[in-house]
Amino acid sequence: MKTLRSIISALLLTGTTVAMAGGNWQTLPETAPAPANNPTTSAKAHLGKMLYHDPRLSASGTVACASCHNVMAGGEDNRAGSVGIRGQVGGRSAPTVWNAAFNSVQFWDGRADSLEAQAKGPVTNPIEMGMKSWDDAIAALKQIPGYKPAFSAAFNSDEITQERVVQAIAAYERTLITPNSPYDRYVKGDSSALTDQQVRGMNTFAEIGCNHCHGGPAFNGPALPQGQGFFMKFPINPNPELESKYELSADSGRAQVTKSADDAHLFKVPTLRNIALTAPYFHNGNVKTLDEAVRVMAKVQLDKNLDDKQVGDITAFLNALTGEFPRQDMPRLPATPGKTFPFE
Amino acid sequence: MKTLRSIISALLLTGTTVAMAGGNWQTLPETAPAPANNPTTSAKAHLGKMLYHDPRLSASGTVACASCHNVMAGGEDNRAGSVGIRGQVGGRSAPTVWNAAFNSVQFWDGRADSLEAQAKGPVTNPIEMGMKSWDDAIAALKQIPGYKPAFSAAFNSDEITQERVVQAIAAYERTLITPNSPYDRYVKGDSSALTDQQVRGMNTFAEIGCNHCHGGPAFNGPALPQGQGFFMKFPINPNPELESKYELSADSGRAQVTKSADDAHLFKVPTLRNIALTAPYFHNGNVKTLDEAVRVMAKVQLDKNLDDKQVGDITAFLNALTGEFPRQDMPRLPATPGKTFPFE
Repeated sequence: MKTLRSIISALLLTGTTVAMAGGNWQTLPETAPAPANNPTTSAKAHLGKMLYHDPRLSASGTVACASCHNVMAGGEDNRAGSVGIRGQVGGRSAPTVWNAAFNSVQFWDGRADSLEAQAKGPVTNPIEMGMKSWDDAIAALKQIPGYKPAFSAAFNSDEITQERVVQAIAAYERTLITPNSPYDRYVKGDSSALTDQQVRGMNTFAEIGCNHCHGGPAFNGPALPQGQGFFMKFPINPNPELESKYELSADSGRAQVTKSADDAHLFKVPTLRNIALTAPYFHNGNVKTLDEAVRVMAKVQLDKNLDDKQVGDITAFLNALTGEFPRQDMPRLPATPGKTFPFE
Repeated sequence: MKTLRSIISALLLTGTTVAMAGGNWQTLPETAPAPANNPTTSAKAHLGKMLYHDPRLSASGTVACASCHNVMAGGEDNRAGSVGIRGQVGGRSAPTVWNAAFNSVQFWDGRADSLEAQAKGPVTNPIEMGMKSWDDAIAALKQIPGYKPAFSAAFNSDEITQERVVQAIAAYERTLITPNSPYDRYVKGDSSALTDQQVRGMNTFAEIGCNHCHGGPAFNGPALPQGQGFFMKFPINPNPELESKYELSADSGRAQVTKSADDAHLFKVPTLRNIALTAPYFHNGNVKTLDEAVRVMAKVQLDKNLDDKQVGDITAFLNALTGEFPRQDMPRLPATPGKTFPFE
């Protein structure tokens, strides 16, 4: 299977080992790596925070990045389908922005190689932010005089370009990290950080093989080079009842990007960090509760029938993956004197 | 005229003097008064900030107070009509929440006697947040376990009621004050805080009588007891051309509340604080630029034809009313484990 081959070669390449039962638990780094051409600076992250919260990047002036990826909450919108301009509803459940810096590709189908590439998508997606073109988005920002000094501080020139907008947003997103969850504290040696049930769940999580995919510090797989996605077929094991109940097989996933039948129903393995905050679950958001998500995943991915105690234990463990959210100042959004939304 | 009589009696009652040319300029207080039954506490304001930013108070789960009254910006949405649930557009331009604590009544037509009363409106307004009833709104909040400790901290009991929700939101809003504008610093004695043009504009503002209505520390009239509105007819002087161009007379204003013909086209005198940030202007948002708003107001309220220099000077002065926005932490919105928007 192409995906497994690519995983194995990646593992060999990077030397990362997928955690097995009882071993190799990893804590979340407190800083995220950044590409050489976009080092994270406070001025750039500050500009990115402004842009991320600015609804003027949408055609209607009503939808910001933060509308669907709410950093005051779990980094998404707790909806099956996100609501874009004019009330339109998207086809997949918004992934969390928290710790997205630790994904080697972005979107459920991995179609963006980086946070920078991801940020280019929603602005011109007709059912998300709906700008006709990035030229329109840049023209809108150029009508806001207060952005110039922020671009100057971030890039040493006040020129506003698409490249800089997405670099700033990505730089901000690389600051959205939630370390020091109870799990992290436990791994670092604080044996009181987890309850007995959570420790049982942690062991069960590894014993039944959840961490074959949900390994690594962000529980989204091994560290891979940016752009090399960690994908898995979902569901692996045919299960007509669950596939029908939760429409698990309606979305062909990665195949929509590659146009290859080999990639049918492949999805990026999502992080489990803060998973307790991001109901509903799966790419289509059709499973509302975490315990049911655990039960379904065990069945269709690992062919395991978990009993209620196992489900409860794993769910308790997953609740221990909720980290500490950094204190964030609200950005000030610069005014548009004499302009009315939407811009004309 | 009923309104003028009520103004004059209020002035006598409170001892406040409407500023005339050159006199009685007032700075903005750094704290806002609070009603005896809702003292502002940090725990209550913190809860209010959470609620204010929580879209789960809307039927669709997409509209928060902050959506139309954006505290990252000028406290409103820079639109003629605000966008509520399912893309519906409201009939009046959203007033700013910044310094709203200094209004003695709320809404353009003054139909709310207090910030608490105001906060009750949008949640169940079908084109704003669209909850069928406040019972539904409270039921939604009760599905969010993380609100209980915040209500406990604010009210010494974790009971969630409409009364407490609006008290908390109002308490938060009373912290949204922007002191120390260039104007305030000038009045306090820093003669370098205003440009020569701004000083000329300040004098012209008083000489032609703008401060007959836009007096007091918030430039929204004299200090009146809560619930006693400071209203003015708009337009006072018939002007078919401007009334037609900007649809100035389409909205009967206060008369919609009182059902009295005496109140036709009366509106609450809005604050001019941060007016440079809150285009477009007037109750209907039909005037896009501040200089045109100055020109129209002088004509239809004061029967004055200003020349370009006067308009430029007053506009420059109004730009000096942009204050200092307090640093605000983003609130953390508690999760709804196992729930999907909109709540069922």
